[in-house]
Amino acid sequence: MNDQKYDLVVIGSGPAGQKGAICAAKLRKRVAVIDRRMMIGGVCVHTGTIPSKSVREAIFQLTGLAVRTFYGKNYRGNGDISIPDLAFRVNSIISRETEVIRAQLKRNGVAIYQGTAKFQDPHTIAIQGDDTISVHGDNILIACGTRPARSPDIPFDGKRILDTDEFTFATSLPREVIVVGAGVVGLEYASFMAAIGVEVTLIDQRSMILDFVDREIVEALAYHLRQMGTTFRLGEKVTRVGIDEQRDRVFAELESGKKVQGDMLLYAVGRQANGDQLELEAAGLAADSRGKIKVNDSYQTDVPHVYAAGDIIGFPALASTSMEQGRLASCRMFGAPSEHIPELFPYGIYTIPEISMVGQTEEKLTAAKVPYEVGISKYIELAKSMMLGDETGMLKMLFDRNTRKLLGVHIIGQRATEIVHIGQAVLAHGGSIEYFRDTVFNYPTLAEAYKVAALDGLNKL
Amino acid sequence: MNDQKYDLVVIGSGPAGQKGAICAAKLRKRVAVIDRRMMIGGVCVHTGTIPSKSVREAIFQLTGLAVRTFYGKNYRGNGDISIPDLAFRVNSIISRETEVIRAQLKRNGVAIYQGTAKFQDPHTIAIQGDDTISVHGDNILIACGTRPARSPDIPFDGKRILDTDEFTFATSLPREVIVVGAGVVGLEYASFMAAIGVEVTLIDQRSMILDFVDREIVEALAYHLRQMGTTFRLGEKVTRVGIDEQRDRVFAELESGKKVQGDMLLYAVGRQANGDQLELEAAGLAADSRGKIKVNDSYQTDVPHVYAAGDIIGFPALASTSMEQGRLASCRMFGAPSEHIPELFPYGIYTIPEISMVGQTEEKLTAAKVPYEVGISKYIELAKSMMLGDETGMLKMLFDRNTRKLLGVHIIGQRATEIVHIGQAVLAHGGSIEYFRDTVFNYPTLAEAYKVAALDGLNKL
Repeated sequence: MNDQKYDLVVIGSGPAGQKGAICAAKLRKRVAVIDRRMMIGGVCVHTGTIPSKSVREAIFQLTGLAVRTFYGKNYRGNGDISIPDLAFRVNSIISRETEVIRAQLKRNGVAIYQGTAKFQDPHTIAIQGDDTISVHGDNILIACGTRPARSPDIPFDGKRILDTDEFTFATSLPREVIVVGAGVVGLEYASFMAAIGVEVTLIDQRSMILDFVDREIVEALAYHLRQMGTTFRLGEKVTRVGIDEQRDRVFAELESGKKVQGDMLLYAVGRQANGDQLELEAAGLAADSRGKIKVNDSYQTDVPHVYAAGDIIGFPALASTSMEQGRLASCRMFGAPSEHIPELFPYGIYTIPEISMVGQTEEKLTAAKVPYEVGISKYIELAKSMMLGDETGMLKMLFDRNTRKLLGVHIIGQRATEIVHIGQAVLAHGGSIEYFRDTVFNYPTLAEAYKVAALDGLNKL
Repeated sequence: MNDQKYDLVVIGSGPAGQKGAICAAKLRKRVAVIDRRMMIGGVCVHTGTIPSKSVREAIFQLTGLAVRTFYGKNYRGNGDISIPDLAFRVNSIISRETEVIRAQLKRNGVAIYQGTAKFQDPHTIAIQGDDTISVHGDNILIACGTRPARSPDIPFDGKRILDTDEFTFATSLPREVIVVGAGVVGLEYASFMAAIGVEVTLIDQRSMILDFVDREIVEALAYHLRQMGTTFRLGEKVTRVGIDEQRDRVFAELESGKKVQGDMLLYAVGRQANGDQLELEAAGLAADSRGKIKVNDSYQTDVPHVYAAGDIIGFPALASTSMEQGRLASCRMFGAPSEHIPELFPYGIYTIPEISMVGQTEEKLTAAKVPYEVGISKYIELAKSMMLGDETGMLKMLFDRNTRKLLGVHIIGQRATEIVHIGQAVLAHGGSIEYFRDTVFNYPTLAEAYKVAALDGLNKL
């Protein structure tokens, strides 16, 4: 059989692959996307971003977390959270999102192949599905993402000892959980469980969590997690993980001699990129030890017609930035004009409470000797936060003392991931803190925090 | 007794009065605020914005409106909504907000007088409280707001026939309600009741509702209100309202001969400004027939040391714009530098679903012969809206076909009043629609609607 020929073959249909394929299709190129059966949308849709954020919203709404301020800490909006409740919502969102993506690809004339992709030569990809076929791509975009990094020393059983991909499909909720790894993913799941009353112990080798985030915001998060019953074990190394079958308990032994116990252990230490599964050598490429692929500023690998985008190329490995990388890779490979503002992407951490930031941190500005000033608004001063029952949020803006230019925005609290884009727009246009003083905000909103923070900051000059 | 002397005496402690007083205090002026006993914060806090928006949030959360998408239309999150539930939340928010304002005034050294204010001469205000005293102001800021306009033909009884100030304190929920007046306030209350399953009939003399809002958005709102069981009677004049005591029912007769019945009638036809109650003639001023006071661009009345701000001066009569007017009035009277962007204030309508807009409408641009194009994003395409259960929202942006400059943003759906500020920031900085294409948005958020709409719009060029 002759190989089908395409202008672009994309390996992976997650955020980077999708947007890369659609961008090329809009440039009137012939495009194919390959992904494993039932995996349209990638890890993002099936085990990563979408399920975890869906669980988050469900917990947030079903626990009545938002109205606890009024009814006291023991209030539960809709009775106890059940796993079938959560699973029902998550699965309905996964199927809809999968259909949205499939429809969008089809509408744009993108061919979809189901199976496992491997390079046969620099332009030919074998697809092992029901049959094995192969396709030819003048260009290739590798966007096949990551999987949880599994340590061989951990006796995963998919029930009591789980990785983060398995967690969404757990069949029961623990009463006490051990979370190993306090990165973004570990913290997100830890906070969801703490919010529904699970006792959480969070263990990380590092003594500092979220080192790229403003310290004041991280400390507020740690404070709230502790308030919800989380125990932090930072700077602690796990030496052994096991199951006590008799008592149906899991345990983790730490180098310091401590032993932590629980009903479930969630292993959330990093992710392994899937570059090791593509037989890259047939294309004249190689992945690094963590499966990652190296690219230049145009997302081009060392083989000029092969591009890579998304989690497979590493930091920041966000769905949002991966989409943009996929789109830009297609623009660059087909010579379409493209611009973007690479340093101004916002960071969204979907813990409870949520965190978002854009621009510089105090730590970076201090290192760079930029004379900044800080303006702060506590959510508790805002009428809207009383209505939403958020007594703990805050917005912090950093600006240049001399020029008054906005330098960074850091938010913890409800809707942080939405309202951070207001600061991002002002940053991108080189605006100053005075913009927020002179602007009318809808009342009542959480966005008003910008005005309150700006007045606070200007008062300090 | 000698009159206490102040640099500024403010009549009214609502949004305009508060912000005017605090701005003057920060300029190190001696400031007094007068308001009626128990009315610190004004109508905004006690019977207007704060109670209505608190009821809205409570209904939104307690009905589980957000999760109905998953569980079907008959799902009720927390059982039926009870008036004590709502009253409890609303009252706790009112007391907290009152305390926040009182504390803020005190912290800034503003004197607070409780009583009814009347002019004695252009600089002297008599305050009738427990005793009658008077105060002297080198400057006066009138910010005493409005009250519901009550027609003498309507037999208000505070129980079955109510104005909008009384409604928050109703002791029971109707099964069928007649709302007379489909302005912003009438529509907000109509939508709240429709959301909790009350049958609503909405009557207005005008055949077009919300004539300053984008037609597509208004039609979407009307569609959703009808879906929730609302009947519109537009272009219909109410000739008589009465109570059928025997059947404990209210009715409204229309000029067209129709008769509408219900358990409760909410009269939401306009508001009367309180300028008629200040004995303005003693200051050499007069209010118009609706109690309003005329001012120039600096919020100055015909008597140069007397300023007015907030609802008392009329359109747009939003808490947000009133705050800004109060602040600007103080800046101007004391010669402090001040800037603002008067035409770029956002409009927030807190119906269910909520609406917000900033900048130009299609109607205005067409009249001005500006060659615009439209980019649209339907919420249903966004992962976040699936998680929030909003299948009906949309964001629409208008931009110049030639320069690609953003001209206006119109949103209906959850968080519309928050995310509209992203468009506002881009508009204020003269940004283009390409900004949204080239920017990374947090995923998943509703703010992503900007990116989707921008791509849609650019595809049309």
